Amino acid sequence: MANTSNYKLSAAVSNLKYDDILPYKTQNGTVTNEFLQKLIEILLDFVRATNDRNEKILDFHHPAEMQALLDLAIPNKGVSLQQLIHDCATTLKYQVKTGHPRFFNQLSCGLDIISMAGEWLTATANTNMFTYEIAPVFILMENVVMTHMREIIGSNWVNGDSILAPGGSISNLYAFLAARHKMFPNYKEKGIATIQGQLVMFTSDQSHYSVKSCASICGLGTDNCLMVPSDIHGRMIPSELERLILDRKAKGHIPFFVCCTSGTTVLGAFDPINEIADICEKYGMWLHVDAAWGGGLLLSKKYRHPRLSGVERADSVTWNPHKLMGALLQCSTIHFKEDGLLMSCNQMSADYLFMQDKLYDIKYDTGDKVIQCGRHNDIFKLWLQWRAKGDDGFEKHMDRLMELSEYMVKRIKEQPDKFYLIMEPELVNVSFWYIPTRLRKMPHSPAREQELGKMCPILKARMMQTGTLMVGYQPDDRRPNFFRNIISSAAVTESDVDFLLSEMDRLGHDL
Amino acid sequence: MANTSNYKLSAAVSNLKYDDILPYKTQNGTVTNEFLQKLIEILLDFVRATNDRNEKILDFHHPAEMQALLDLAIPNKGVSLQQLIHDCATTLKYQVKTGHPRFFNQLSCGLDIISMAGEWLTATANTNMFTYEIAPVFILMENVVMTHMREIIGSNWVNGDSILAPGGSISNLYAFLAARHKMFPNYKEKGIATIQGQLVMFTSDQSHYSVKSCASICGLGTDNCLMVPSDIHGRMIPSELERLILDRKAKGHIPFFVCCTSGTTVLGAFDPINEIADICEKYGMWLHVDAAWGGGLLLSKKYRHPRLSGVERADSVTWNPHKLMGALLQCSTIHFKEDGLLMSCNQMSADYLFMQDKLYDIKYDTGDKVIQCGRHNDIFKLWLQWRAKGDDGFEKHMDRLMELSEYMVKRIKEQPDKFYLIMEPELVNVSFWYIPTRLRKMPHSPAREQELGKMCPILKARMMQTGTLMVGYQPDDRRPNFFRNIISSAAVTESDVDFLLSEMDRLGHDL
Repeated sequence: MANTSNYKLSAAVSNLKYDDILPYKTQNGTVTNEFLQKLIEILLDFVRATNDRNEKILDFHHPAEMQALLDLAIPNKGVSLQQLIHDCATTLKYQVKTGHPRFFNQLSCGLDIISMAGEWLTATANTNMFTYEIAPVFILMENVVMTHMREIIGSNWVNGDSILAPGGSISNLYAFLAARHKMFPNYKEKGIATIQGQLVMFTSDQSHYSVKSCASICGLGTDNCLMVPSDIHGRMIPSELERLILDRKAKGHIPFFVCCTSGTTVLGAFDPINEIADICEKYGMWLHVDAAWGGGLLLSKKYRHPRLSGVERADSVTWNPHKLMGALLQCSTIHFKEDGLLMSCNQMSADYLFMQDKLYDIKYDTGDKVIQCGRHNDIFKLWLQWRAKGDDGFEKHMDRLMELSEYMVKRIKEQPDKFYLIMEPELVNVSFWYIPTRLRKMPHSPAREQELGKMCPILKARMMQTGTLMVGYQPDDRRPNFFRNIISSAAVTESDVDFLLSEMDRLGHDL
Repeated sequence: MANTSNYKLSAAVSNLKYDDILPYKTQNGTVTNEFLQKLIEILLDFVRATNDRNEKILDFHHPAEMQALLDLAIPNKGVSLQQLIHDCATTLKYQVKTGHPRFFNQLSCGLDIISMAGEWLTATANTNMFTYEIAPVFILMENVVMTHMREIIGSNWVNGDSILAPGGSISNLYAFLAARHKMFPNYKEKGIATIQGQLVMFTSDQSHYSVKSCASICGLGTDNCLMVPSDIHGRMIPSELERLILDRKAKGHIPFFVCCTSGTTVLGAFDPINEIADICEKYGMWLHVDAAWGGGLLLSKKYRHPRLSGVERADSVTWNPHKLMGALLQCSTIHFKEDGLLMSCNQMSADYLFMQDKLYDIKYDTGDKVIQCGRHNDIFKLWLQWRAKGDDGFEKHMDRLMELSEYMVKRIKEQPDKFYLIMEPELVNVSFWYIPTRLRKMPHSPAREQELGKMCPILKARMMQTGTLMVGYQPDDRRPNFFRNIISSAAVTESDVDFLLSEMDRLGHDL
């Protein structure tokens, strides 16, 4: 990026303050424009740098050092417009370029330009999604896109209901609440006292921790969220699920909710939905599919099956367009096969906010069916992006991400001395160890895994300090630390995958 | 605004598609810039129109009509860059200008240019707030601003903890969860089974419905969220609170949580914190202050007392900078006097995401102390705005909003034939009836109130159809529909207040 001191406002403007521009000085529209145009210059430079492979992904500093490099203090008297421009440039100088083609660190990354344009517009429109009254176009867009997503989940979902939520964890919470409400309609008013027995829920031991968190928030307690064992690929074992259900039933408990994960966080595994759906039908339980991560593959004819086969049998589905689909953060959706549940579950009948005697058809007001009151507009960026790509473009995007991941697996297998592939992935999560020179001759064993695991944080630290590459690592319940590479950005190419492997070797061979 | 067809890309660019720009075509940086610059033109025109009193606030259409005016469909093949530009322009053409100086409709409005600039940058940086690793500068900013806000709440709050949440409802939920966890530390694992007796919570009958919603979500049931009667000003009556507590104790229930509202949604009332704090101390209950709306007045020496006197005695405080402070949506904060509670309450020890063996001091990672996993960056816009205004600028902003509201009250009192002031406000909520000609000679009575109430939806519909003014209305538990005017935008002036009153008369005198 350009030096932060390169961004100079004109002499007439630089010492002005916030109250010299709109909305304070209505005659100062051109000054406002100059300020915003200077900001845009900074943003466009950042976009350019993000897409430039010669630029570093990050300029790492430890928290204490970083605090010394920045002036973060809130002043008593406000700073000048020029200082604000400097603040913006400095912030981006030290920010990680999560959209850089060599950032493979998180499930959500990439910088989709159309989605970004959508978010700029969203900021400027600055409205709230609770009523048609103040967000007419956005509310209609939400309807169109949510209906389309439900059609993609299954043809029997068209007349269901959906909502955008601030992240997959809250989406999963919506599913839990709707399930409890559907099965125990008095719970809303009477609470736990209405139920004779302990409610129990089930999820795989590889599922996202937000499922367990629901049990804590909602009063079940995490001990009543049972972790069903998974197979060596990380997929829930249906017979184990059934065993645990029977076990709890024998204790007089009430199993009511199963979360099936489509795309686990670490290994990218897909639980077998159809087999789990059979069990849910047998015992009259709610089936939720947490496809926050893997949901994007619903858009691909090639990769949808067998991974997500049976998803149309679920009662609810979480699907985060801000992950595989590359929408800007945040953009998470929750879908229900049955209409009306969201409203009856969450409605508090706050007529002082959601009046019934309005000018227009109030079925378009969403405020009373959510657990938030005000809701950020997360739809526009997704709608614009989907208009740009079409279904066809999203399908190509999914197929491309999967092909790149397959390419990476192939390249890892071609270098067995340097890399150890932990398993054939089902999704874009590629799990592996990097093997430094001194361990290449050692046969693979639990002892070598321990050694390889110890190196992950060190190699990751080297990546960050060099600034050329970011790949995440973590332990799981079977292994010490290993690398989990994520390709979810449209910016990635085969040569970036080659770079990733050679750069890990360059930084780590002597470990 | 300019005609939507005025925004033309160059001939060479207009038919290009999303995959002709970054990140797909890295050589096409200039094409990307042209597309984004054209969008910026639309946004700057919208900002100009928002601040132009000759422009309408909205161009109202019923949902069915609106759908015919727009092309919202998701295509199979994506549309061109020119079509996307057109889509953006059309969206804003039909969007309500919530930042218009004559939009008095909602608690959050105004378009703060600096905060908007912050949100544009936030979009471009597109990161997630769960770790220092991928949001180093933003995490530090969050620390600085949250600490500053706690200092403003009370000097004994500096070593507490805070978090940004997606809206006041979720902030209140955080307070509830922390309170339950503090008092019943086994609840997290064991759930309701750990408690011998019914938990009960208390809030005023004027409080925001999200407090009741917590009782539903968390398993108490709304019947165990008791609505404490309020006085004629809308303030909780402490003796009634104590009566209800004793009543429930006598039944063997466990009163544990009181929500005190600082700035009620409709009337803008402030519950007497000190008296309620005395009761909470007496019975060992958690005191939460929901200052989502009124919290801004903490910044004003003139208006802070007596409204928020005693706030430093609370255990938790919700405060939404996106309301009175004018930060862009969403920006909501929750603060705790005690540090460590957020973490121990919400932590699920997801070591696969929040590793302990990192390069840097992990005390800066926030991911494991929130009920979301990923979290949108809501801090930058607030930090930048606070840098711009300083404490001093925010204080002036609060004082100005209050003075404008006092001006409105004065003007209403000067026209007793046309307006009926329901009560002297404590905040910027001005509650009143408009009196059309035929009712001016009728003495004020419950019968007249019914008549005046019936006119609110009609007059509101006229405002929306004319597009010149938006003021909200609602009933409450004592009155039929009445208007509640909100001044929370820095764009408003005395002449806008005069316009508001005369425009209501112009549109409504014949009703």
